[in-house]
Amino acid sequence: MKVGVWLIGARGSIATTVVAGVAAVKCGLSAPVGCVTELPFFAGCALPAIGDLVFGGHDIAVTPLTKRAERLAEGGVLPARILDAVLDDLVAADAEIRPGAASVAGSGPGPDPATLAADIAGFRERHRLDLVVVVNVASTEPPAVPCPDHASLAALEDAMADGLSVLPPSSRYAYAAFRAGCPYVDFTPSTGARLPALDELARSERLPYAGRDAKTGESLVKSALAPMFAQRALRVRSWSGINLLGGGDGATLADPAAAASKLASKSRVLAAPLGGDVEQVIHIDQVADMGEWKTAWDHVTFDGFLGVRMTFQFTWQGCDSALGAPLVIALARLMSHAYATGQSGPVAPLAFFFKDPVGEAAHGLAEQFAALTQWAGQQ
Amino acid sequence: MKVGVWLIGARGSIATTVVAGVAAVKCGLSAPVGCVTELPFFAGCALPAIGDLVFGGHDIAVTPLTKRAERLAEGGVLPARILDAVLDDLVAADAEIRPGAASVAGSGPGPDPATLAADIAGFRERHRLDLVVVVNVASTEPPAVPCPDHASLAALEDAMADGLSVLPPSSRYAYAAFRAGCPYVDFTPSTGARLPALDELARSERLPYAGRDAKTGESLVKSALAPMFAQRALRVRSWSGINLLGGGDGATLADPAAAASKLASKSRVLAAPLGGDVEQVIHIDQVADMGEWKTAWDHVTFDGFLGVRMTFQFTWQGCDSALGAPLVIALARLMSHAYATGQSGPVAPLAFFFKDPVGEAAHGLAEQFAALTQWAGQQ
Amino acid sequence: MKVGVWLIGARGSIATTVVAGVAAVKCGLSAPVGCVTELPFFAGCALPAIGDLVFGGHDIAVTPLTKRAERLAEGGVLPARILDAVLDDLVAADAEIRPGAASVAGSGPGPDPATLAADIAGFRERHRLDLVVVVNVASTEPPAVPCPDHASLAALEDAMADGLSVLPPSSRYAYAAFRAGCPYVDFTPSTGARLPALDELARSERLPYAGRDAKTGESLVKSALAPMFAQRALRVRSWSGINLLGGGDGATLADPAAAASKLASKSRVLAAPLGGDVEQVIHIDQVADMGEWKTAWDHVTFDGFLGVRMTFQFTWQGCDSALGAPLVIALARLMSHAYATGQSGPVAPLAFFFKDPVGEAAHGLAEQFAALTQWAGQQ
Amino acid sequence: MKVGVWLIGARGSIATTVVAGVAAVKCGLSAPVGCVTELPFFAGCALPAIGDLVFGGHDIAVTPLTKRAERLAEGGVLPARILDAVLDDLVAADAEIRPGAASVAGSGPGPDPATLAADIAGFRERHRLDLVVVVNVASTEPPAVPCPDHASLAALEDAMADGLSVLPPSSRYAYAAFRAGCPYVDFTPSTGARLPALDELARSERLPYAGRDAKTGESLVKSALAPMFAQRALRVRSWSGINLLGGGDGATLADPAAAASKLASKSRVLAAPLGGDVEQVIHIDQVADMGEWKTAWDHVTFDGFLGVRMTFQFTWQGCDSALGAPLVIALARLMSHAYATGQSGPVAPLAFFFKDPVGEAAHGLAEQFAALTQWAGQQ
Repeated sequence: MKVGVWLIGARGSIATTVVAGVAAVKCGLSAPVGCVTELPFFAGCALPAIGDLVFGGHDIAVTPLTKRAERLAEGGVLPARILDAVLDDLVAADAEIRPGAASVAGSGPGPDPATLAADIAGFRERHRLDLVVVVNVASTEPPAVPCPDHASLAALEDAMADGLSVLPPSSRYAYAAFRAGCPYVDFTPSTGARLPALDELARSERLPYAGRDAKTGESLVKSALAPMFAQRALRVRSWSGINLLGGGDGATLADPAAAASKLASKSRVLAAPLGGDVEQVIHIDQVADMGEWKTAWDHVTFDGFLGVRMTFQFTWQGCDSALGAPLVIALARLMSHAYATGQSGPVAPLAFFFKDPVGEAAHGLAEQFAALTQWAGQQ
Repeated sequence: MKVGVWLIGARGSIATTVVAGVAAVKCGLSAPVGCVTELPFFAGCALPAIGDLVFGGHDIAVTPLTKRAERLAEGGVLPARILDAVLDDLVAADAEIRPGAASVAGSGPGPDPATLAADIAGFRERHRLDLVVVVNVASTEPPAVPCPDHASLAALEDAMADGLSVLPPSSRYAYAAFRAGCPYVDFTPSTGARLPALDELARSERLPYAGRDAKTGESLVKSALAPMFAQRALRVRSWSGINLLGGGDGATLADPAAAASKLASKSRVLAAPLGGDVEQVIHIDQVADMGEWKTAWDHVTFDGFLGVRMTFQFTWQGCDSALGAPLVIALARLMSHAYATGQSGPVAPLAFFFKDPVGEAAHGLAEQFAALTQWAGQQ
Repeated sequence: MKVGVWLIGARGSIATTVVAGVAAVKCGLSAPVGCVTELPFFAGCALPAIGDLVFGGHDIAVTPLTKRAERLAEGGVLPARILDAVLDDLVAADAEIRPGAASVAGSGPGPDPATLAADIAGFRERHRLDLVVVVNVASTEPPAVPCPDHASLAALEDAMADGLSVLPPSSRYAYAAFRAGCPYVDFTPSTGARLPALDELARSERLPYAGRDAKTGESLVKSALAPMFAQRALRVRSWSGINLLGGGDGATLADPAAAASKLASKSRVLAAPLGGDVEQVIHIDQVADMGEWKTAWDHVTFDGFLGVRMTFQFTWQGCDSALGAPLVIALARLMSHAYATGQSGPVAPLAFFFKDPVGEAAHGLAEQFAALTQWAGQQ
Repeated sequence: MKVGVWLIGARGSIATTVVAGVAAVKCGLSAPVGCVTELPFFAGCALPAIGDLVFGGHDIAVTPLTKRAERLAEGGVLPARILDAVLDDLVAADAEIRPGAASVAGSGPGPDPATLAADIAGFRERHRLDLVVVVNVASTEPPAVPCPDHASLAALEDAMADGLSVLPPSSRYAYAAFRAGCPYVDFTPSTGARLPALDELARSERLPYAGRDAKTGESLVKSALAPMFAQRALRVRSWSGINLLGGGDGATLADPAAAASKLASKSRVLAAPLGGDVEQVIHIDQVADMGEWKTAWDHVTFDGFLGVRMTFQFTWQGCDSALGAPLVIALARLMSHAYATGQSGPVAPLAFFFKDPVGEAAHGLAEQFAALTQWAGQQ
């Protein structure tokens, strides 16, 4: 099975790491560390091989992937020793990147959904792919303003026929993906497929979608630790955290509107396992000097027996691209599996990957992993 | 159902916190925070009420519980405001404490197993208890020296008949507990019931036992986090930790022989989920100034995609007595349940509580919790 | 020499800790830990004895000091065992507290400066004090709006004569202090004496003043560590920090206007030793659950030789009242020394105590300490 | 002034970083970050230019510097982009490396002192150097066993004449350095010049020496922070720390005998400013995975006013070679200054650089810096 992966934000750090990393794994230069689908739990599940994935995508940026890869190597994200070996794959993917729909106000709407869908379909045909999975790894958008045109597919298409630009870019891509017959994954906290009209479209086209907002660092740890406190009947009183990010992600999230999406999504990770009365402080700050790296510090106060006060702190120092890229690969393969087994609408068993998962899902990371492996083993 | 809890080390910090805490919960002065068995998952399981527990035990120390409670209040473990209200319960429990078998070399062997068993049986009769659960919360012993007399009950009893002192104190208590018809729990890393001869005795008497070495702090966090790395296919390279302990626990563990038991037990927590090639550094140090408090710092190095190096650190600042006491209560209640439902030998579903669990058990904390609640809900 | 200490915010946590603590030290129940002026360096300097200090002050709050002290004992700031012994001193100080000028918008202006000055003078006469030092430990105010009436004493008094309320409360107190012939200390980041008109008044009355914004935790550490990086020629690239505060201080600083004063003052601590090109992130957040306690986490990125990137993190867990109170005592004694030796205007050698010191001062903590002890030893 | 730097351990990580770094600075590829002597404070002091330093040394290792530099580039210590530019300098320095005296028991004594001295003298003549400064950056030795032959130069030379191997390797190098007319610096905690016989030799030859054990990370921070607690009259109760080191340094210090020297030296940093009653825990552990990197975690408990308990923690993540190399450069230049200005024996004003400084020195880092800059500015 030959599967294409169409990346929205195809020239960003994560996308570049995905393309370079798959090439490095393919030629044996690197082990598939972080690729969840390589665990023995997934051995019985017919997934497309990592080496069979083909890449293309949309982006508003024009810096070629080869240049981006060099910068990532300087920043310590890509090992310099793989650059030569992955060059051809980067060039090939770069040739399949088309101009995108801007996510930033004021930079113009970009191509209409029909053009976006045609771009994806053309990619599928050129490479004779069995399936293309669209994954949004572009910059985070502000939360969508509620709008009656989002309530149903009919209302949405009426508004679009009137020439109205009623969808945020991430949702325009989701619309285009579904119209092109492709599953769609929101790797970011943007709106994406998360509108009644788009859910309706996905179901009518019998297409699965998943998201949103991959948990790659602080939230991953939170989703592993919050159940620990709950299961031990310890009373968490406050959970405060600060995220220091460099690079493009930091710059985007320095915009309070975009940060709002991220903060909302982050706060959901604790509410489910611990209940609503935990005081939360969440900050996301740009520290340009940190480049591609991210440091999160979390501070938890909790009560033990007889109300004795205790504290827990952690510091996570990670590279988001090196954490996110293998998840993108796993998600593309698992969505191909969902499609192949006839699932449509939100794919809840993928909650393991997300802060704010679609569908009805367990809250703790371990329960989510159990649900994922059970789902993968069923078909 | 009226259940007795017979504490080995009945005048220690944990035991004092157990007795004072149960009294405080009983009279409504404190919520049962940290009592796992109060979670809704256990609602369908007929457990003895917290207020119905009656306490006694063995100890080589003579400082009365009321005095110990005052010191714990000064150290911030017990709230000063509950002291008056729990006074009668402390006095009552203190009256049920009998001289114990020394765990420290050189302080004499103490009472023989028959006397120990008679002490427990007398307690049961005086209070007309349906069951007494014996829980070892005494100081950690050095690892037991392998000995052919431990291989079978017959061999053991032959040696004992010859007047040989072949059992370490914790195992002498386990023998006495089983002879008195009582389930036994090893809350510490000591040998306790963990000998073939004692397993044979427990099974022949149709008695359950559980242990060993409760995970209350650093190891608890490790068992919640190690599966996270494994499930995300991240490669953990090293896991280093240091534990700073004050008080009696610190003093005991400053003895390298006793620390050996603890360190062995601690290192097991990682090996199962992460495999054997993780570099481990584990220190336990006494810092007398820390009193009843414990601080653990852990440092983890791991690889993400393409071998990118990342790190994770945490600091746990807890009060072991306030973490351990509610687990003792939960274990007494759950062992009563195991006994009532006819289980004997090692109770593997209690692995959730221990670093080095008896029986065949899952490794991750969440899987252990699932196993525990499933077990509790079955009967 | 009998010296009075007139506390603005006399019923707050710091003031209560000052009064209770001096009483405890006086009767031998506690050592003067944290009292800088007890160090041998100050042995040659004729300072008033701690036991000779007499307390009064202004406050808009009415909860008596005895009640406040009980709450601080519950919060772990005051040892419960001293409460009885310090009761009389708390009652005596409480009897010397007069209604204050509100620092919060909307709660009315409170007494005029003449009344405030009369309150202070009355206290001095009743107790036949040689001197009264006024120390502002009230809640932080927003930064003062620049105003031409602040430019000279004549302009200020003209405006006041016209019935205009041109001074923020902290400055009204400073005006009253100077009019009553008292040295004045700004322990907070509020405006206080920091206006040309008030500096003019202090000099004309031959009165010293000091401030502002005591460094008690994170900033203290910063002022000790920033010079280390500078002296080792290491290049600090970013310094990010978050402060989690409970209690009243947290509530006040949750107001962005008040926090602005604090943040401005905090950022000054780094600029001097490290230069202006260090990226800084500073957060102050309220976490009500933390009560009287404060936790600060700081994260520093810096370059070594050949541009190698390194990081440093620290976590400070302190109790602001227990850190600030002994500094208030030291400042009252040192200001008495400044007055006795005829100094007027800003007292620069007290920079050791402050984030944003008055006068020309060294930047590093150690240099400031050297300047302080040299000054104290000169007279 | 043309100065040679003769490195004992000339093929180790620090030495390689010194040679490569000086070459990179010389050709403008890197700024002299971390070079203390480049600070404006030293502008008036006639130091040899960085670019005028010439390198040679002793080592028992044979891996060429170019190979070592490649490995350091892989480990992130040297930027890959400078390797080509510094190649010639590495080759030149490598040609000046002579076989050394083994520091590890069992690997043979190596050349006698006369040969070692002749090696150094030959280097000076070949390059027509005004002075050669010998700096010991070899692996840490165990503490020297006290020996009457060390008590005077006469006794020492008698023993040597009898063919006895009475000196540890670091001291054999110090002897050779002095006999060759060279100042000597102990960058490690080894014995080096720290014997009465060698002090006598240095003074008789009118040669200065300095050391020992450079403070580059945890100890640097300790020496900046301990005075802060002392100056604020806060009572430090315990100071616990753990150092995780990879690479060769970690392997050496995994040997308890070698670690003993390091631990003794480390504990001295706190004793002076804080007094002897601070509980100390110090660990040094090898974590091979950490490569050239080092992480230290320190945990401090201290009392504030009224005995309120507080804590401070820090985590230092540094690269020892990138921290140590610029100090080696600074020390070579400053020792040249000491020599030029006629100083002999221990140079106390260099205490700023060391954990266990020779001569009478101030304890706090800031006082040491003041002493250093005053000394440098005097001549």
